[in-house]
Amino acid sequence: MNKFWSETVKRTKPYVPGEQLNDPNIIKLNTNENPYGPSPQVSEAIHSEMKRTLHLYPAPDADELCNEISRYYHVSKDTIFIGNGSDEILAFSFMAFFEPHNQICFPAITYSFYPVYAKLFNIPYDEIALNRDFTIPAEDFFGAEGGVVIANPNSPTGLYLDVAVIEDIVMNNPENVVIIDEAYIDFAPDSAVSLVTKYPNLLVVRTMSKSRSLAGLRVGFAIGDPGLIEGLKRIKDSFNSYTVDRLAIAGSSAAIRDEDYFQETIQKIINTRERLIPEMKKRGFHVLPSQANFIFVSHYKISAESLYQRLKQQGILVRHFDKPDIEHYLRITVGSDEQMKHFLEVLDNVILHIKESAVKN
Amino acid sequence: MNKFWSETVKRTKPYVPGEQLNDPNIIKLNTNENPYGPSPQVSEAIHSEMKRTLHLYPAPDADELCNEISRYYHVSKDTIFIGNGSDEILAFSFMAFFEPHNQICFPAITYSFYPVYAKLFNIPYDEIALNRDFTIPAEDFFGAEGGVVIANPNSPTGLYLDVAVIEDIVMNNPENVVIIDEAYIDFAPDSAVSLVTKYPNLLVVRTMSKSRSLAGLRVGFAIGDPGLIEGLKRIKDSFNSYTVDRLAIAGSSAAIRDEDYFQETIQKIINTRERLIPEMKKRGFHVLPSQANFIFVSHYKISAESLYQRLKQQGILVRHFDKPDIEHYLRITVGSDEQMKHFLEVLDNVILHIKESAVKN
Repeated sequence: MNKFWSETVKRTKPYVPGEQLNDPNIIKLNTNENPYGPSPQVSEAIHSEMKRTLHLYPAPDADELCNEISRYYHVSKDTIFIGNGSDEILAFSFMAFFEPHNQICFPAITYSFYPVYAKLFNIPYDEIALNRDFTIPAEDFFGAEGGVVIANPNSPTGLYLDVAVIEDIVMNNPENVVIIDEAYIDFAPDSAVSLVTKYPNLLVVRTMSKSRSLAGLRVGFAIGDPGLIEGLKRIKDSFNSYTVDRLAIAGSSAAIRDEDYFQETIQKIINTRERLIPEMKKRGFHVLPSQANFIFVSHYKISAESLYQRLKQQGILVRHFDKPDIEHYLRITVGSDEQMKHFLEVLDNVILHIKESAVKN
Repeated sequence: MNKFWSETVKRTKPYVPGEQLNDPNIIKLNTNENPYGPSPQVSEAIHSEMKRTLHLYPAPDADELCNEISRYYHVSKDTIFIGNGSDEILAFSFMAFFEPHNQICFPAITYSFYPVYAKLFNIPYDEIALNRDFTIPAEDFFGAEGGVVIANPNSPTGLYLDVAVIEDIVMNNPENVVIIDEAYIDFAPDSAVSLVTKYPNLLVVRTMSKSRSLAGLRVGFAIGDPGLIEGLKRIKDSFNSYTVDRLAIAGSSAAIRDEDYFQETIQKIINTRERLIPEMKKRGFHVLPSQANFIFVSHYKISAESLYQRLKQQGILVRHFDKPDIEHYLRITVGSDEQMKHFLEVLDNVILHIKESAVKN
């Protein structure tokens, strides 16, 4: 504790991101990155941008990317906000739409950054318990006091809520902003973007880090009613005029233009996921039905903590959350087929080793 | 006004950045960008980073850049904070060190983002009047209630405060954080970084946008006591874990490594500035003694507003602030010699034209 810290700093409980080890030999299955690099058109676009204008400020509203998103999602430009990753957009949204005197709500098991934002901005929150199968009890989110945040598909569970259910939640919160965090939606059936023109209180937040394979570039976007977007822009322009740099704008715009590459890599990851799930079940895991680029699994006999540790020793990072409700689970990113083949081999050895030690003791 | 806006949005008065026209034929002398591109090593570094790892998240604390800054400024790594431009660092600093019940102070004429942050975070502020020659009355900043922010050199005036005076202000605010915004310090005699180890309440904020010619890449850094840096990190990690992307980290690190290029381009700009000042005086301008990469000038006869408009019509953008105290002044970025030669030619024509119209009317 430092004597110059504000009350704001004192009440923060910073988010702890998944480990970022710099060892290229490690297989990272812990932060849901995309195993395929971005479209080759991304580096071409960055290369040509870089040659010209790094000494000039970027366009404050990232117009080029805004145009691509407008075209791709068939929405008007005044419904689009561009940010430095979806995390920045979520932070701005908490400032723009929530109040220190109105309790917001989100699922008790979800992206663990939501309570961090709430603490930072002093916003009270209610963590709504999930059903026993980890599904979200939609009715419990109706008529919230101060706002709603739902990740769809949810993380770390990977479970997906149908758009009709999302619509129910939005409809039943006419006085609140409902934020749907669709970080993983491109691996799932359907987005809530189609609802945006119908509901002035819906904000859909997206990232380029997962399906577009640009975690290293820091780009996210939100689609919502122009009134909400204007609120976000006012916050952004009171905070940092240019949060997305020239190379990020050029690269992410190119990523959206290359539809073939996008569809191809998404489909590959979904196929790998669908092959991985039965393999995990065969090995004694309970596997939630994921619609994301990760699976959430629990072994019937072996503790998640010891699996996490042993896998790490063998050069494979998965995510284990040290949280009572989910301490028996691991979240494992769906990598490439080769990565998952290697992962399963290592996993077999780890399980065998643990069973043998158990027999010996 | 939108019914879903928070009180925070309602009280914002967003910053209006200098115009960013996308016409490459326009000579931009309005946002103090560097006319020379960044070091050629920057694009090499970006190029090699891009090939490898855009699909992976960046290092949350931008370690590579931290190492370069530590080496360059002879400070330990725990005194360094990296941000998405100095604007983001200033925003985080207002959250980390200032309170809604303690009035902070900054000069009445300075970077116009300071009151914007204060409004955003609901922090009361006192705008301390400058002396009539636009110099900063240092004693008026002693014993501030809640914190101090000073740009050195100041913008838009370009005036520089000696480090001994900065030290006086820091020493006379033992209970407050004093932020010295050194966006333009590389064009001036001396930085306050040398004071950081002596004063736990001093935070020096820097940008790579001006002297390092990387406005398009969004990188800034702060140097201060480890206690202050930890406060900033707690805010950042409660807001957005990765605000500086992989290409920005790689590029800005390379820019710091290329010391020769840095010194050469800085010196060129200073030389151009020193040649420009007498030329402006010859043409009937009052010119403040600038230690930045811009000059602040006022014509004895012609209004700043009309000069701004006429120059813009001729394809030259300079900055005019529509603010009572400085409405008679223009801030003009020091570009390359060729740009300034062209600027002076256009200026001569503009002045001639205005004088001729005056005679006719």
